Amino acid sequence: MTDIEARFSALETRLRLLEDHNEIQALMYSYGPAVDSGSAPEVAARWTEDGVYDVDTGAMNSRAEIHAMVLSDAHQGYIHNGCGHVMSPAYIVVDGDTAVGTTHTQLIFQRKDGKGYNISRVTANRWEFVRTAEGWRVQVRKSRVLDGGEEGRGVFAAGVRT
Amino acid sequence: MTDIEARFSALETRLRLLEDHNEIQALMYSYGPAVDSGSAPEVAARWTEDGVYDVDTGAMNSRAEIHAMVLSDAHQGYIHNGCGHVMSPAYIVVDGDTAVGTTHTQLIFQRKDGKGYNISRVTANRWEFVRTAEGWRVQVRKSRVLDGGEEGRGVFAAGVRT
Amino acid sequence: MTDIEARFSALETRLRLLEDHNEIQALMYSYGPAVDSGSAPEVAARWTEDGVYDVDTGAMNSRAEIHAMVLSDAHQGYIHNGCGHVMSPAYIVVDGDTAVGTTHTQLIFQRKDGKGYNISRVTANRWEFVRTAEGWRVQVRKSRVLDGGEEGRGVFAAGVRT
Repeated sequence: MTDIEARFSALETRLRLLEDHNEIQALMYSYGPAVDSGSAPEVAARWTEDGVYDVDTGAMNSRAEIHAMVLSDAHQGYIHNGCGHVMSPAYIVVDGDTAVGTTHTQLIFQRKDGKGYNISRVTANRWEFVRTAEGWRVQVRKSRVLDGGEEGRGVFAAGVRT
Repeated sequence: MTDIEARFSALETRLRLLEDHNEIQALMYSYGPAVDSGSAPEVAARWTEDGVYDVDTGAMNSRAEIHAMVLSDAHQGYIHNGCGHVMSPAYIVVDGDTAVGTTHTQLIFQRKDGKGYNISRVTANRWEFVRTAEGWRVQVRKSRVLDGGEEGRGVFAAGVRT
Repeated sequence: MTDIEARFSALETRLRLLEDHNEIQALMYSYGPAVDSGSAPEVAARWTEDGVYDVDTGAMNSRAEIHAMVLSDAHQGYIHNGCGHVMSPAYIVVDGDTAVGTTHTQLIFQRKDGKGYNISRVTANRWEFVRTAEGWRVQVRKSRVLDGGEEGRGVFAAGVRT
């Protein structure tokens, strides 16, 4: 029975890691649809209560501040003029009860003349996750524009060394 | 043995769910390559026989109509002038024998002057899947442009509440 | 015990296939962050020693040549002016110790006037992987621009028939 127990345990551990990846993907890949539809509670709920969304254009330091960003005039203006926060597929590394995800995001706006869309920003993103009693949540998301400067490249350089 | 049977059964159920996600990802992520290469049978085959592709610019109500769209002058013009249907990674929720996937799609065309590409449309997409004897298939895909109106945001608002 | 052995073995085989998908995704999805941050060793390390990166604008035929591309004046110019190599989620097919991944890539540059970004290229990509003692590696990556010609569409037509 010892051998059987060990084999069950090994399978469960491997399966759990794949489930962690799957759950983290769901958390990341529903962000864009949530923010582009102005679903403020759903956006905020993916962070921990004191989670941080650290953007070069301004940091938010709690669920409440992230919720307020979605309802702000600026963000409401974006989504009522036509806007997509489009993510690339994430490089995810899980290490026990923490994890890191690395992705690009394109911020795309409808042109004022209605003839298609322009890309306003392309950012490098580092998502730091923590396993909580409610499931995986974002502790810190750091976004830096890829404008040729050190910061954007630095987010990605750190990410690929994870 | 009862305990062993229960543990096998639990593992098999968890594994099956991850396999469902994996299969649905393959179905979604091969759509762009299929449609951009004009592979009409492969595009059509991912829907059920009476599957629906409900686009704001016109609905297709069967595999046959989806197949015809790929061979249409309009679509053939797109792909012979340089075109990409580029999807974002999907938020997927599996519930037994049905599933829902939520994604952005960018429709990108080569510029007529050959100097790069323009984004023509950014859409919100809801894919409804059903498990069939042949594997997972698309029952309904609904696409609505993110132009600031209710419809595009509504697709995403419903998706993140899934 | 025979029945138990067979059930363990079947679960391990299914789990291994999902782990292969997960590992190949990590290899693909960290490419963009690696190349956009100029992380030459990390970019090169995802190919086999004699791996090929076959791009329509010029082929690289070893890790050393891929490493040199990242450090080239051309590539360094891109990433110091603001650049994103943004991938779509991949259609991956694993067959024993080899695998194929099919994706779009957008090559996006910051505009010289700093007002947003332009899409320079949209390519069809075929990644051929091999399982090595160190894990999955890229043996050949073939990239062809989607400019309306046979080559780009051909990469995707072959990919969806995999």
